Amino acid sequence: MRDQSATASSDFVKPDFAAVQKEAGTVDARAALALPVGQELAAGRPAVALALWQDRTISTGELIAAAEARCAAREPRLHTFVPLYTTNHCDSECKMCSMRKGNTRMERKFSGRNEILEQLDILYTHEGIRGVGFLTGEYQDKYTRLSTAFRIGWAMRQALDMGFERIYFNIGSMEPDEINVLGEWIRPAEPVTMCVFQESYDRETYKRFMGRTPQEVPKADFDRRVVSFDRWLDAGFRYVNPGVLVGLHDDLAAELVDLVAHGAHLHARGAVVDLSLPRMRPANASRDTTRVTDDDYLRMLAVVAFTCPEQRLVLTTREPQEFQDKAVGLAGVFSPGSPDVAPYRADTEAQNDANTSQFLVADLRRPRHILSRLQANGMRVDHFVDPASLATVPIS
Amino acid sequence: MRDQSATASSDFVKPDFAAVQKEAGTVDARAALALPVGQELAAGRPAVALALWQDRTISTGELIAAAEARCAAREPRLHTFVPLYTTNHCDSECKMCSMRKGNTRMERKFSGRNEILEQLDILYTHEGIRGVGFLTGEYQDKYTRLSTAFRIGWAMRQALDMGFERIYFNIGSMEPDEINVLGEWIRPAEPVTMCVFQESYDRETYKRFMGRTPQEVPKADFDRRVVSFDRWLDAGFRYVNPGVLVGLHDDLAAELVDLVAHGAHLHARGAVVDLSLPRMRPANASRDTTRVTDDDYLRMLAVVAFTCPEQRLVLTTREPQEFQDKAVGLAGVFSPGSPDVAPYRADTEAQNDANTSQFLVADLRRPRHILSRLQANGMRVDHFVDPASLATVPIS
Repeated sequence: MRDQSATASSDFVKPDFAAVQKEAGTVDARAALALPVGQELAAGRPAVALALWQDRTISTGELIAAAEARCAAREPRLHTFVPLYTTNHCDSECKMCSMRKGNTRMERKFSGRNEILEQLDILYTHEGIRGVGFLTGEYQDKYTRLSTAFRIGWAMRQALDMGFERIYFNIGSMEPDEINVLGEWIRPAEPVTMCVFQESYDRETYKRFMGRTPQEVPKADFDRRVVSFDRWLDAGFRYVNPGVLVGLHDDLAAELVDLVAHGAHLHARGAVVDLSLPRMRPANASRDTTRVTDDDYLRMLAVVAFTCPEQRLVLTTREPQEFQDKAVGLAGVFSPGSPDVAPYRADTEAQNDANTSQFLVADLRRPRHILSRLQANGMRVDHFVDPASLATVPIS
Repeated sequence: MRDQSATASSDFVKPDFAAVQKEAGTVDARAALALPVGQELAAGRPAVALALWQDRTISTGELIAAAEARCAAREPRLHTFVPLYTTNHCDSECKMCSMRKGNTRMERKFSGRNEILEQLDILYTHEGIRGVGFLTGEYQDKYTRLSTAFRIGWAMRQALDMGFERIYFNIGSMEPDEINVLGEWIRPAEPVTMCVFQESYDRETYKRFMGRTPQEVPKADFDRRVVSFDRWLDAGFRYVNPGVLVGLHDDLAAELVDLVAHGAHLHARGAVVDLSLPRMRPANASRDTTRVTDDDYLRMLAVVAFTCPEQRLVLTTREPQEFQDKAVGLAGVFSPGSPDVAPYRADTEAQNDANTSQFLVADLRRPRHILSRLQANGMRVDHFVDPASLATVPIS
């Protein structure tokens, strides 16, 4: 396995799975599980994760309990942001995604100045939300990529100036000139998190879903995508969020190892890391893929939560409420919302139309209801100010 | 010839040249020339323009004198704006233009937030300029066109909020959704002028230079381009600036008739109309074209200035100072500056690099020097506050 410390300031390189497997063979998984919070084995995190995943004498329930104990020590218990798709135009052709360019059934939309400001106002005022994630497709030509960076940079600035406390953005891979155009709108100290989910770290699976021609399809460029965080850190920013789309690649152990390695690399570079492991959702006219069972999925989440204790797992409303309740103890971020364009409404739940959404979520309850229920269950949620609680505060 | 009054609220349609020629045959050009300011012949303006152009018993000097007398009645005598190219990326393939996509010798640039604000500050503070024109290329796909409208709308808002008094924009043809995205940044009453120069109103010449495949090359769509002003007026905006690139089409009389007809149509719709008749300039790796003589060019300008007295001709530093001095009496707008990307400098003249500019101007003197000289010659120039005059105002 590569030496993380020697490459902490260089680009991420995937570990060699055979080497990690070999190291995992030396790990006492039970001993790892018994370590108090704040202590880690001498072995690399990918190897510990793999050992925990593979040792089926340890039940998923035991793993969850151990991971939850680690997560419970964090303050705040959770923070939140709501996704805001600012368009569903995209130049990529990802087979699992409704937004892919070739999907003629998608009705394309674009949010201008007023719609973005209105959506932010709804989230702030009517949902009590102080964290927002801006999304777009990914685009092929340089001018379009720069123009996207400009518009999303502007949107971030507006949100921060309105009082939003945390920003995410998910607009595809980024090159240094694009980061410059976006970065002009913010200060490095502001909590702005780049999300560039690799989806799969397996090159063959990646090609199968994202395409084989990077010169025509922007997301087909595996290498540009995987080092985008390194470019972001090079530019002086700190917050990153890698991810795997669980169900894309059959070999969950391999994805687990690579995601944990990626998080470790970024952490070693000084980044504040969130991790996303969304599970496939039905999408408009997209290819069906392997369904990962709840048990496998929870085990994966628990292993990641346990081995990367300073990194927050992001849980979303892709999953139904019943599953959320099982997984929320492993999460550090809860992100409710809809992957439709400008979907939020002041007085009712969000839109999630199959003809304009990236996918269909399992849970369309309003963010304020979801988050206030979590708080009622004793979990403090940062970046959420329940409008109901404000309404009941007596005027003194 | 079509009845302008019957179509004042519908889209512009080119007049039939044979019909205009026939009507011109009935016009007494000498009588037209003798009419006092504020009076016009009963004949249509295109016919009067054609008669004046063709009657060579009237010298160009006589035409210029008559046109200058009309222009001299206007207040202010001139106003100004400076062009600001915010990028040289373009998806079009216009044979006469260095910015065309296929020009591999062009080094592509893009201005983000900071560069746009810096350029505006230089123009405002160091050049004393209160009018600015934002330019881009033209783009093929809808998302890129909308993103461009967003960025330029933002730039307009910044300029207006900084104290700029007049805005032009020249970003290609526009469709209603694109106008909406741009228009959200401004109020209809604000003086924001859409510039969409048809370049040539002759369809064959247009195809020869702009291309024959509108499904691939955005500017190749003659019809979308020519009605862009009608869409702008439909949306409630008022300021428009059509234009001809003089030298592209051999038949100057035909261009003259169509441009005057276009101006008359827009005027009848209630628009405030400026007219541009730039003459071809050398450009990086572009096709050479017919050179129009000074006398023909001045005659053309004089005929337009005379027949469209409420419309302002735009004169630029494409022409050398010597020619400017001959033509300025016919102009209503003087626009100095450089067609390079973000070319202005606080303490020296603008950049105009062949590798990054749309073309090379003939006159790179600083806008403040050009405009203060015009004012010293007795012409009031609106939207210009000479920084030298400010510096010499005693503090009371």
